[in-house]
Amino acid sequence: MARIVQKFGGTSVGDLDRIRQVAQKVRSCVDAGNQVAVVVSAMAGTTNQLVEWAKQIGPMHDAREYDTIVSTGEQVTVGLLSIALQNIGVDARSWLGWQIPIKTDEVHSTARIEEIKAHDIIERLEKGQVAVVAGFQGIAPDGRISTLGRGGSDTSAVALAAAIKADRCDIYTDVDGVYTTDPRIMSKARKLDYITFEEMLEMASAGARVLQTRSVAMAMRHRVNLQVLSSFNDTPGTLVQNEEKQMEKQKVSGIAYSAEEAKVTVVGLPDKPGIAARIFGVLSELNINVDMIVQSASVNLQKTDITFSLARLDLSKAVTSIANLKDELAFERLVHDDNIAKISVIGTAMRTQPGIAKCMFEVLSEKKINMQVISTSEIKISVLIQADYAELAVRSLHDAFGLDTSD
Amino acid sequence: MARIVQKFGGTSVGDLDRIRQVAQKVRSCVDAGNQVAVVVSAMAGTTNQLVEWAKQIGPMHDAREYDTIVSTGEQVTVGLLSIALQNIGVDARSWLGWQIPIKTDEVHSTARIEEIKAHDIIERLEKGQVAVVAGFQGIAPDGRISTLGRGGSDTSAVALAAAIKADRCDIYTDVDGVYTTDPRIMSKARKLDYITFEEMLEMASAGARVLQTRSVAMAMRHRVNLQVLSSFNDTPGTLVQNEEKQMEKQKVSGIAYSAEEAKVTVVGLPDKPGIAARIFGVLSELNINVDMIVQSASVNLQKTDITFSLARLDLSKAVTSIANLKDELAFERLVHDDNIAKISVIGTAMRTQPGIAKCMFEVLSEKKINMQVISTSEIKISVLIQADYAELAVRSLHDAFGLDTSD
Repeated sequence: MARIVQKFGGTSVGDLDRIRQVAQKVRSCVDAGNQVAVVVSAMAGTTNQLVEWAKQIGPMHDAREYDTIVSTGEQVTVGLLSIALQNIGVDARSWLGWQIPIKTDEVHSTARIEEIKAHDIIERLEKGQVAVVAGFQGIAPDGRISTLGRGGSDTSAVALAAAIKADRCDIYTDVDGVYTTDPRIMSKARKLDYITFEEMLEMASAGARVLQTRSVAMAMRHRVNLQVLSSFNDTPGTLVQNEEKQMEKQKVSGIAYSAEEAKVTVVGLPDKPGIAARIFGVLSELNINVDMIVQSASVNLQKTDITFSLARLDLSKAVTSIANLKDELAFERLVHDDNIAKISVIGTAMRTQPGIAKCMFEVLSEKKINMQVISTSEIKISVLIQADYAELAVRSLHDAFGLDTSD
Repeated sequence: MARIVQKFGGTSVGDLDRIRQVAQKVRSCVDAGNQVAVVVSAMAGTTNQLVEWAKQIGPMHDAREYDTIVSTGEQVTVGLLSIALQNIGVDARSWLGWQIPIKTDEVHSTARIEEIKAHDIIERLEKGQVAVVAGFQGIAPDGRISTLGRGGSDTSAVALAAAIKADRCDIYTDVDGVYTTDPRIMSKARKLDYITFEEMLEMASAGARVLQTRSVAMAMRHRVNLQVLSSFNDTPGTLVQNEEKQMEKQKVSGIAYSAEEAKVTVVGLPDKPGIAARIFGVLSELNINVDMIVQSASVNLQKTDITFSLARLDLSKAVTSIANLKDELAFERLVHDDNIAKISVIGTAMRTQPGIAKCMFEVLSEKKINMQVISTSEIKISVLIQADYAELAVRSLHDAFGLDTSD
């Protein structure tokens, strides 16, 4: 017997038939003797429609009213799933954010969960009732509905799992786990049985869209065992857990990539303090997320170059705003490239096994793929390359690190 | 300066453009120096869709989950209208049933309002903020969302008007007031400037679908001045108020009719106590509303007939259930007619002016219209006739009582 949180996203509850299928999955888990809390998103498409209305009704939108509107999507799903469960003989009731309550901060529309009062839910779980909890929403200090921002239901699920001390938090999605790389470009990609939180975090931020980064970070902090698995079949998924729980360590866990990158280089900057802060300050004010940053050593005395990568979508905004600083910063010129991909090799074993970077660089060099920028963390090496070579790079690295061999 | 509740139904908030129009109406009322609370329904069609889902997901539906689902319609509208108001410079915020709170009894899906804690709203009204309140919903003693049943937003508006001691409650609808009879069948029908609560109650229960009966009864009990007016133009509507406020009394206020009636006669019942209770007990268990009931005097010793009218929709269910009682009640036979209309002449002046019934019967007789059942109250005379003659009867009575002359 275990206490389990199951989370189903918008596609999994996309219509009444799918909601009935979810109810069957929940029942199997209950029949196996578990206490179950379910967290659901809005039916696919619903949230987009609601967001659209909120934006169209007027140019300004009060985030508190926005939250009141968009939170209805999950409210509908929890009611429908509870009825579906009752109809197949499972005792269930719905819980809205304000009913539990899930207390958040006051930042409407991108709120953070501060506390979940799980006493009532735990009492009912122990009596065998399934708790069907609306994801993505909570209640702010002003007594009004708050929402957690896009993808917030993953975060709701993890936070609930922490609050009710669940043995596991199962995230059902439309893929059946975390792969060594994107199976769409590498048919030999292998589903991982285990991955560490840190690796998952790097995978997520490096472009693998299986789990929201925020929810992984929260799971790591609260030591919630996560499992990513498919809502459309019954195969086991990928367990995301603490490093010490993993029996055997892989050299490399996966190759992540993101093809929607761009790169900007500010050439010939005076090499003095405050320049970088000025550039990235301006970008931050425009809400532009900068990913990799490399400052080259001064070749000419007192001159330096700064290169950074960012999402392709943000490129023109970034270039315009930096161009406006030309007189102030006295740089020579601005170079940019919107045809860039980021390839990352990820694995906790890097900490103890040197030579992975060397191996990566050799593979890329053999394929004549030029690395434009290199950036490393304890468990990740990322390089920027021309986007045209992204698939070749992923396949070659996947082969070289032996990821397609079976366990 | 006055304190006013405005209520807008589903058609009035049917899409974003109409919600913007409603916002303009609210602003006009605010600009005229009034304190304004607005009660809104769900966008037309939304509630039907939600009800459909709740029914389709499984044959049993828990009324508490049903309420959770269907109450989202109003939640979306209050958010959208608040944003629309803010965008034209009106300070506004949305209020959900549980936020105020509007406390109801525990009968989910047909709950009754027990108390409205209006303190916070009044405080904000006095500071000039418009309260945008979700109609149709409240919070039950179990802390879960309750709904008031179909048309419940009228009731929400009247209850709110009573709680905040509003000077008037304006019900915006798709007609511009209460007419002497249905303008679709009598082009000379005249809009009434005033009508008493009791007349309005009789009009509503006699088939005029302008206001929900329940909301009129509540307005009468709490002495809330109601006004029915159009959300699509700016002409004054009809004031529904206490009799003593009316300056001049009309002989007859209106002719109401309902063409969707049926009639059942149970012939040859033993004339002994408990028989009627048994028949109407069975119908009541099936949730069949019986309207007029007439028991004829015993002609043959110890035998009697009972005739009653009901909505045509319920006829077959009623006939089947009474037929099942044939052995138990030992009646002779069951006669029914599904082609019946009810015509009602309504006016408080009937109390003091005799002769109205006589006039009504003469008019119908002149037109050779046979009255099958007659029933009277203090301020109403209703007759059942063949449905084919309904329009002729309404027009003739409208003429005879001089309703199409101007004030």
